[in-house]
Amino acid sequence: MSVSIKSILDAKGRDVVTTGPNTTLSEAAKMLNENRIGAIVIVGADGRISGIFTERDVVNAVAKHGADSLGKQVSSLMTTKVHRCREDATINDLMELMTQRRFRHVPVEDKGKLTGIISIGDVVKSRIREIELEAEQIKAYIAG
Amino acid sequence: MSVSIKSILDAKGRDVVTTGPNTTLSEAAKMLNENRIGAIVIVGADGRISGIFTERDVVNAVAKHGADSLGKQVSSLMTTKVHRCREDATINDLMELMTQRRFRHVPVEDKGKLTGIISIGDVVKSRIREIELEAEQIKAYIAG
Ligand SMILES: NC(=O)C1=CN([C@@H]2O[C@H](COP(=O)(O)OP(=O)(O)OC[C@H]3O[C@@H](n4cnc5c(N)ncnc54)[C@H](O)[C@@H]3O)[C@@H](O)[C@H]2O)C=CC1
Ligand SMILES: NC(=O)C1=CN([C@@H]2O[C@H](COP(=O)(O)OP(=O)(O)OC[C@H]3O[C@@H](n4cnc5c(N)ncnc54)[C@H](O)[C@@H]3O)[C@@H](O)[C@H]2O)C=CC1
Repeated sequence: MSVSIKSILDAKGRDVVTTGPNTTLSEAAKMLNENRIGAIVIVGADGRISGIFTERDVVNAVAKHGADSLGKQVSSLMTTKVHRCREDATINDLMELMTQRRFRHVPVEDKGKLTGIISIGDVVKSRIREIELEAEQIKAYIAG
Repeated sequence: MSVSIKSILDAKGRDVVTTGPNTTLSEAAKMLNENRIGAIVIVGADGRISGIFTERDVVNAVAKHGADSLGKQVSSLMTTKVHRCREDATINDLMELMTQRRFRHVPVEDKGKLTGIISIGDVVKSRIREIELEAEQIKAYIAG
């Protein structure tokens, strides 16, 4: 019924922008800016996901710590309990997760390995494609 | 076919967090943080929309100007060409706009007056409700 995460990753690619836990807020802000993304996955020395650092974390740190926030390491500001999904999850699953838990980014993992990331915009884009396909089907049905 | 913006605003409310153009980035970050939102609508002395300031603007300013960004006024960092919609627009219209133009927030306006704001999360939440209704209809149909 609902589009799979696999098919979205097939279309958009599986590269994920990551960095280590000692990156400063200032460096992380530059990475977000240069890549035009809203989240960076933080990986430990073992290559596993150790957290996620988002543009909202930048805002909250600046709000709380002012100029002192710029030199802080992302490890002290990131979310460590990262919700992930597998490639066989569906868009509908992710919409529920994003709405209920207020996440905008969900890393995709396969056997402990990071294989992609899905953002709320990817979900909406996929929904537009679904609507287009539905419209084409209705047209074809009417045309007989 | 698609849910109207009016029905979303009826459910979620029409209050909009706004501020003036002389607000500093530091103050704006606190407003975003305290209200747990990603965007503030900037209104001029005439009460009309003069811009929108988002969490991405915070990140980009910190990336470019470092600690100097904190005292900058939002008027120098905000987006001034603000895309708005009316209450009779639909969720599908907004999904298209958000995906193509990369906006996550669209202020709602009626005769030059700000009457609400719709975020990408509001759109996704409305879609979940749609899916639930569709499922109920299919169940009712099968049950005869
Ligand atoms: N026209 C298009 O193809 C797309 C438009 N958008 C729009 O852009 C705006 C921002 O998008 P959001 O989804 O809120 O967040 P975002 O800015 O974080 O995501 C933008 C794109 O970057 C990718 N991305 C995010 N973090 C990444 C990382 N660490 N490594 C690799 N890729 C990463 C996402 O999967 C998405 O495709 C929204 O208005 C959205 O509607 C989003 C995705 C695709
Ligand atoms: N469970 C729920 O009811 C909702 C959950 N979400 C989730 O929260 C996360 C962040 O949401 P986003 O939509 O990306 O952005 P956001 O954090 O800016 O929006 C959150 C809520 O605040 C409202 N809002 C935003 N700016 C406002 C302003 N200036 N004045 C008044 N209200 C304002 C939005 O309309 C939305 O209802 C996402 O993961 C999303 O899926 C978003 C909306 C509703």
